[in-house]
Amino acid sequence: MQILVTNDDGIMAPGIQELAQKMTSLGDVIMVAPSEEKSAIGHGITMFEPIRVKKMSFPGIKEAWAVSGTPADCVKLAINEFCSDCKLVISGINQGPNLGTDVLYSGTVSAAIEGAILGIPSLAVSLASYESCDFSLAGDMALMLARYMYENQQSLPERTLLNVNVPAVDKDKIREVKITKLGIREYENEFDKRVDPRGNIYYWLTGKVVPHGYEDINIDIAAVEQNYISVSPLHFDLTNYKIIEKVQEWGIENKDIER
Amino acid sequence: MQILVTNDDGIMAPGIQELAQKMTSLGDVIMVAPSEEKSAIGHGITMFEPIRVKKMSFPGIKEAWAVSGTPADCVKLAINEFCSDCKLVISGINQGPNLGTDVLYSGTVSAAIEGAILGIPSLAVSLASYESCDFSLAGDMALMLARYMYENQQSLPERTLLNVNVPAVDKDKIREVKITKLGIREYENEFDKRVDPRGNIYYWLTGKVVPHGYEDINIDIAAVEQNYISVSPLHFDLTNYKIIEKVQEWGIENKDIER
Repeated sequence: MQILVTNDDGIMAPGIQELAQKMTSLGDVIMVAPSEEKSAIGHGITMFEPIRVKKMSFPGIKEAWAVSGTPADCVKLAINEFCSDCKLVISGINQGPNLGTDVLYSGTVSAAIEGAILGIPSLAVSLASYESCDFSLAGDMALMLARYMYENQQSLPERTLLNVNVPAVDKDKIREVKITKLGIREYENEFDKRVDPRGNIYYWLTGKVVPHGYEDINIDIAAVEQNYISVSPLHFDLTNYKIIEKVQEWGIENKDIER
Repeated sequence: MQILVTNDDGIMAPGIQELAQKMTSLGDVIMVAPSEEKSAIGHGITMFEPIRVKKMSFPGIKEAWAVSGTPADCVKLAINEFCSDCKLVISGINQGPNLGTDVLYSGTVSAAIEGAILGIPSLAVSLASYESCDFSLAGDMALMLARYMYENQQSLPERTLLNVNVPAVDKDKIREVKITKLGIREYENEFDKRVDPRGNIYYWLTGKVVPHGYEDINIDIAAVEQNYISVSPLHFDLTNYKIIEKVQEWGIENKDIER
C-alpha cells in the first residue's frame, strides 16, 4: 500500500525522517513535505504563487518530494500527482506538542485534516517537547496506529482522523494510551513590543500558556502532562450544532434587513 | 463600545471599508487588518518574523492599523494592544464566498474564530462573488447581526461565532436569512503542472468545485445558491465526539506499544 508521509517542520527534520523509516515496514512510503519549516501556518494553501517541487532521495523511501508550499498544499499535491492510491496520510513527527485549541494553528494537524477532507484515514503525530530528539517511541506509536488503521480499513469510521501527542519522558515513565478530547489552551501577554533602529514599532508574538487547571486525563493537555500518550479523534466540521436552535430563536430568519 | 473590524483582503479592500463605516453607527470602530491580501492563509500565525504595524486614518474610524501579519495575528494583536475592551470582532466583508469546508482555508473566518477563542462574540461576513463590488446589503446584514449580538450580549451562547454569506444578486432577488450548517466543498483536478524557462517543474493550485448536489437550504452552500443569506453558527472544537467510543473499542488504551 501507499502511505503518504508529510510534516510542517520540513522534509529534512529528524521527526519526519524517523516516521518515514518506521512506515517502510508497512508499505510504499511517499514523502511529500515542505522544503522549509512551515510551523504555525495553520490550514493555509498557496493560491497566488507557483508551488515548486524538488525530487529527493532517502534510503528505503519509494519517492520523496520537497515542496515550496504549506503542509496542506503538500497533501493536496501528493494525492493529485504522486500517490493517487494513498491509503493513509501521516503527518509528523512534530517537534513540540499539538494540543487543545493549538491544533488550529498547527501545520502538522492541518496536513492530516487535509488528508481526511480528501477521504483518506489520517494521523498527526507530535512529540511533546521542543528539545528532545528521541522520536523512537512516537514512531512506534505511529506505526501501531497506522497498522491498526490499515488492517481495519473496512470498519474504520468515515474520515478517521487522529491527533497523537507523545510525552517526551523516559519510556519507563510513560503510562499508557488515553483516547482524549481537546482542551482549551490560553495564552497571556502575547506580544513583545520593540522599536527598530529606524524608530519603527514591531512586535514579536510570544506569550506564556495560562495554567490550565485540567486534571481530567480524558483531556489531551492533562493526559500528556501526566505522561499518557494522548490520541484525540478529530473532525473538520466547524458547524456549532449545539447553538443552531438558539440562533434560530433570534428571529432573524423571517425579518427584513434594516437599512 | 469597541468593535474590532478586520479581514483577509487587506485594509484597503472595499469590503472592509464598507463594513467599518457601517459599524460606526454602533460604537467605536478599531480597524486592525493586514497591510496586504492574505487570502487562503487559514489560521496561520506569525511566530518567526516580527510583526510590523502602521497607523492609518479613515473618516469616522476611531483607530486603524495596517499589520504585516495574518488575520489571526491581527485579532490577537488588536485585543492585546489596541482594543482591550472589545465587545465584538467582525471580519470581512470578504470578496468571495466562504462556504462549507472552505472555511478551514479562510483567513476571514479564522480571524473570527480567533475572536471567539479570546472569548469575544465574533462574525465573519462574505459576499459570495469575486466580481461584485456592491457590499451594501452584506454591510446591512452585518450591522443587523452586530446590533443583535451587542444588545443581547448577556444571553448569547458562550463564544458565539457566526459565518455569514450574502448572495451577490439584486436585492429584490434575495430571499431571506437561513440559519445553516456547513456543507462539504470538493474540488477536482486541483493542480496545473508547468515547466519554467529553466526546465524546472512547478504547479498552480487550481481546480473546479465538484457539483455538490445539495438541495437542502439548511446547508450553507445550497442556501446561498438559492439566494438565501446564509448564517452558520461555528465552533472551534475539532474533537470528533461521535467516534471517541468507537476508537476506545480499538483496545489500544491498555496495550503495550509494539517495538
